[in-house]
Amino acid sequence: MKELQERIVQDGKVLSASVLKVDAFLNHQVDPQLTMKIGQRFAELFAGENITKVVTIEASGIHFAMATSFALGVPFIYAKKKKAVTLTEEVYSAPVHSFTRQETYQISVSRQYLSKEDRVLIVDDFLATGAALVGLTNIVKDAGAHLVGVGAVIEKSFQEGRGLLEQAGVRIESLARIESMSPEGIHFIEEEPARV
Amino acid sequence: MKELQERIVQDGKVLSASVLKVDAFLNHQVDPQLTMKIGQRFAELFAGENITKVVTIEASGIHFAMATSFALGVPFIYAKKKKAVTLTEEVYSAPVHSFTRQETYQISVSRQYLSKEDRVLIVDDFLATGAALVGLTNIVKDAGAHLVGVGAVIEKSFQEGRGLLEQAGVRIESLARIESMSPEGIHFIEEEPARV
Repeated sequence: MKELQERIVQDGKVLSASVLKVDAFLNHQVDPQLTMKIGQRFAELFAGENITKVVTIEASGIHFAMATSFALGVPFIYAKKKKAVTLTEEVYSAPVHSFTRQETYQISVSRQYLSKEDRVLIVDDFLATGAALVGLTNIVKDAGAHLVGVGAVIEKSFQEGRGLLEQAGVRIESLARIESMSPEGIHFIEEEPARV
Repeated sequence: MKELQERIVQDGKVLSASVLKVDAFLNHQVDPQLTMKIGQRFAELFAGENITKVVTIEASGIHFAMATSFALGVPFIYAKKKKAVTLTEEVYSAPVHSFTRQETYQISVSRQYLSKEDRVLIVDDFLATGAALVGLTNIVKDAGAHLVGVGAVIEKSFQEGRGLLEQAGVRIESLARIESMSPEGIHFIEEEPARV
């Protein structure tokens, strides 16, 4: 997505070869107009898939799930993060390891809101190590729902997330795929996802 | 907001005289169409106020801030919650006491994104004890910005939040004001906010 890539170049800050700060427009201060376009783009890419639910994780996936589900005309669900393992019969749950914080937390979704009739699109801000997204795919699997695919706003293609999801046969659409980056510049894999 | 009140009656669950569960359509599974209407309503109520930023707290305020800021055509900011007090020069920060969890956490907003030129609308899902919203008003004050008002999706009018904010001279618009509730029913103060 050209507009997104240009915005990353303009307002993103590459702090190191692996850390990209986008809190000026994506995940602290947010540009809602750009976010709505991102949601529309995901809706176009997965059109015809008869999606019934969009699923994400709190907090930084919420506005992208909101925009995508609005464009698709279906509800979205945000998985809750908990440090404590308070598993109950009432939720689907999966462990997620945070490499940044060096800790494992639980994500959970109420069983009431996902079932085997659902066709699910997972959306998140970043696809990097894939830890959070793999956790979400496990929740979708536990619910017996059909996973249509994963939409990531920004993909750090030099990390292992895409490989992990592809191994599991998951369709991935990332709107900006970063092959490499440094404070001197960002190299994107291609302007538009291959399927378009 | 009539549609919201009807939806609360239809899909909300009153667990006790003070606990209302709305996770079927507002804060776990979310109806994006209703959320967009909520945002448009806040934008109408605060029209003419020349708002430059919408501010909320992660996680459950994010989609309402997204919808409101989209309708207003301005950015939104979601304050981050941290348990640890990692204050730096780079953020405005305020303590918030959670009565549910019996703990105090810090909320913070990067200094880069709020300044004395800003006219701020604060938006959140619930106005109850007012703890989180008072914390946000303190951050806006620290930034030297002008607080235009607070928009709450649901107000538990039997709790102290409204009183605390009114004492501080803050304009409050709540889209559903609950005077009292029990598993037998919910009593709303009025169908529409008084100013309309």
